Amino acid sequence: MSIRRTVFIQGTFFSVAAALLLSSTAMTQAPPARPAWLDPYRETTSQLIRAAMADDFAWRRLAELTDTYGNRLSGSENLTRAIAWAAETMKKDGLENVAVEPVMVPKWVRGRESAEIVDPPRHALSILGLGGSIATPPAGIEADVFAVNSFDDLRAHAADAKGRIVLFNAPFTTYGDTVAYRTGGARAAAQAGAVAALVRAVGPTGLRTAHTGSLNYSQDAPQIPAATVANEDADRIVRLIARGRRVRVHLSMEGHNEPDVESGNVIGEVQGRELPQEIVLLGGHIDSWDVGAGASDDGVGIIATWEAARLMTKLGIHPRRTVRVVLWTNEENGLRGATAYAAKHAAHANNHVFALESDSGVFEPPSIGFTGSPAARNVMRDIGSLLAPLGLSEIVAGGGGADIGPIAQAGNVPMMAYLGNPNRYFVIHHTPADTVERIMPEEVSKAAAAISVMAYVVAEMPDRLPK
Amino acid sequence: MSIRRTVFIQGTFFSVAAALLLSSTAMTQAPPARPAWLDPYRETTSQLIRAAMADDFAWRRLAELTDTYGNRLSGSENLTRAIAWAAETMKKDGLENVAVEPVMVPKWVRGRESAEIVDPPRHALSILGLGGSIATPPAGIEADVFAVNSFDDLRAHAADAKGRIVLFNAPFTTYGDTVAYRTGGARAAAQAGAVAALVRAVGPTGLRTAHTGSLNYSQDAPQIPAATVANEDADRIVRLIARGRRVRVHLSMEGHNEPDVESGNVIGEVQGRELPQEIVLLGGHIDSWDVGAGASDDGVGIIATWEAARLMTKLGIHPRRTVRVVLWTNEENGLRGATAYAAKHAAHANNHVFALESDSGVFEPPSIGFTGSPAARNVMRDIGSLLAPLGLSEIVAGGGGADIGPIAQAGNVPMMAYLGNPNRYFVIHHTPADTVERIMPEEVSKAAAAISVMAYVVAEMPDRLPK
Repeated sequence: MSIRRTVFIQGTFFSVAAALLLSSTAMTQAPPARPAWLDPYRETTSQLIRAAMADDFAWRRLAELTDTYGNRLSGSENLTRAIAWAAETMKKDGLENVAVEPVMVPKWVRGRESAEIVDPPRHALSILGLGGSIATPPAGIEADVFAVNSFDDLRAHAADAKGRIVLFNAPFTTYGDTVAYRTGGARAAAQAGAVAALVRAVGPTGLRTAHTGSLNYSQDAPQIPAATVANEDADRIVRLIARGRRVRVHLSMEGHNEPDVESGNVIGEVQGRELPQEIVLLGGHIDSWDVGAGASDDGVGIIATWEAARLMTKLGIHPRRTVRVVLWTNEENGLRGATAYAAKHAAHANNHVFALESDSGVFEPPSIGFTGSPAARNVMRDIGSLLAPLGLSEIVAGGGGADIGPIAQAGNVPMMAYLGNPNRYFVIHHTPADTVERIMPEEVSKAAAAISVMAYVVAEMPDRLPK
Repeated sequence: MSIRRTVFIQGTFFSVAAALLLSSTAMTQAPPARPAWLDPYRETTSQLIRAAMADDFAWRRLAELTDTYGNRLSGSENLTRAIAWAAETMKKDGLENVAVEPVMVPKWVRGRESAEIVDPPRHALSILGLGGSIATPPAGIEADVFAVNSFDDLRAHAADAKGRIVLFNAPFTTYGDTVAYRTGGARAAAQAGAVAALVRAVGPTGLRTAHTGSLNYSQDAPQIPAATVANEDADRIVRLIARGRRVRVHLSMEGHNEPDVESGNVIGEVQGRELPQEIVLLGGHIDSWDVGAGASDDGVGIIATWEAARLMTKLGIHPRRTVRVVLWTNEENGLRGATAYAAKHAAHANNHVFALESDSGVFEPPSIGFTGSPAARNVMRDIGSLLAPLGLSEIVAGGGGADIGPIAQAGNVPMMAYLGNPNRYFVIHHTPADTVERIMPEEVSKAAAAISVMAYVVAEMPDRLPK
């Protein structure tokens, strides 16, 4: 997931805390144990859960995706191949109306990059250029480091940043609180006259692990190269400066943009039996950053939502409405896939009755968040009771996702998010360690089970989910 | 620490298990709570413990070493500067007879290195060339991977290794059990006609973390390039092969040896009051691998043993015998420092009454191992009771260290090891994540306190520790 998810994540964090504290709120009061209106769906939803949990099919498919195609940055051959594989495999699964809707996406290429402290004696820094960063000159940039704790700190000492490499050393608390340095650090440093920006990793201290992600340049400041640096290296630089040492860094980056490339959103459906024009929308994004294997961000999101539709197809379930799975492209550095989907389907935005995104991993313990009207929430609260066998019956406030955002906004669509444990997710988020080994087969199966149940009931129940 | 410590580590692992299982063995029976012969030393040892635990001086010195000089591979400028700093700082501490005893050491230079799967689509592998490895040709080596689980597996399918890159995919259990693939993999692969060797990391799965370390070439096989690969990448290769895919890897390495460089063992003493010729030897190694900052391997070992002597000096303690601290050079890839020390001091080997090495980190919970005669063990068991305030009163079987090994063998010297928690140590062993942040100030202070107490009593007690 990218910066655009911040608002949802923050909402979710808040709501989880609120759920623990305020047991009297509507969202958190215990639903009736067995709402009678759900009785017609119990057999089918039990079947879906059993089928999802029966084996490690979903995990193996995720491994096949991430092992074979690796990371899938927009514009890369890996992404193009992964999209073709997904469409072909959806057809083999028996999904209907499988299509790749073309989208032109940006192509940023990292190239080689390195940074080291040159004075005192040489020490290689663990960095990752931020997505979208410009390159340094071929010989690199060498300058003293000026470290700040915050944007306020930089503003208070802006004169000291001139001609320097500014290090933003804000300790990681939550993604929502600290990602602003990754996205906005380069701009703020450039406004103060800095020649480059380093940003402490937006993640907990790992194993000299840097976390990449996108940055935003703006018209009001020159573009300067920017990279994220492992927490340990930020700590080291700050300790050296605190001892009165000058810390001089040599930074070399080759990042650059190339012309846009054709990519696409992959779409597959379980076509509705009675109301095929009404859409229950599920999905995640097929692109990823160019490090790691894009397993939790967001391979597992596309596999779990796709699996929900595959299970229905396999079990011969054709609900009243259409269940549509979309594997959006270019979530990480452009959101062109989500934007194109909303544009192409604008006329049918109101036909989207529900939208669920999985783009926060599936690490235990997961939770499910929902954003919609009180009437819709009551319905979803009841449906949540069907997830009791999965330990997920409580639906918390705060659903959404970067990819479903544009169409949901256009159609005022109730939104749901499947949310993995953020503590485990942000250890590997946008790092080389986002690989399939860290995810347990049961975690993927559970996500697929929960999503298939929610999607099935919303697609099957006689009345449309209220707005 | 390097391969040469394996035997000691294994001994220690066994002894810890034995200590838990066999409460009736001599080493593990509870010592008398307050052996009367120790009464004359209680006040001084309490003073040493209080002084060591009073502040974070030792941790800050470790941070100064690792921040300022970084990693310290033999032959590097960083190591040369660190040695000069250590000798100068020892003199400022008031240690006596401070000297740098010159040692010529090998110089291996890593250069740039990279590996990627090229078919199926490109995927960069997280590798580290093994210390001592030769380079690939400038254009690299490209070949299919042949994966084996063990040396036996390779022997059983030796024909399949010819012309391939052999991946040794033995899962990490203990360092002692799996390091043989790192040291011996290149040789075994070359004997089977392989063009290069990849070795699954000798460590638990981290965050795409490769663990470097030395390899051994031999006369009976050609030298081929060899690198270690992160566990996740080994897993990926093996999964791809299991699906019937061909995995083709391009490997590029520039590792090479340059002429030997002058380095040195740093020596400082608290000179003995009555028997200055009798030596209580303490130390670790000042060199490290060329990734990370050499904090746990073995910056903390030299700082903790040096601190034991500094505390005595600071408190005005001059025991009967000499306490000598040695910061050996070139433990990691040659052991030239330890060999030179044993050669230079061969005539006085028998004057070494006790030798303690700290080269396994200081992570909680630590233990203390001892190797010596039953008579010596009984004495050390009693002395261990003085460490009760530190929770370290039990001395387990299995002491030693690569650096103290040669002189201890020459003089039949009883040996002790300060042993950090191996589970935490091997996560970062020989990786970029061996940095000072992972070590708590209390952990360094505790090591210094324990070592100073043991050294002081052995140096002070009237009778020499029995052989």
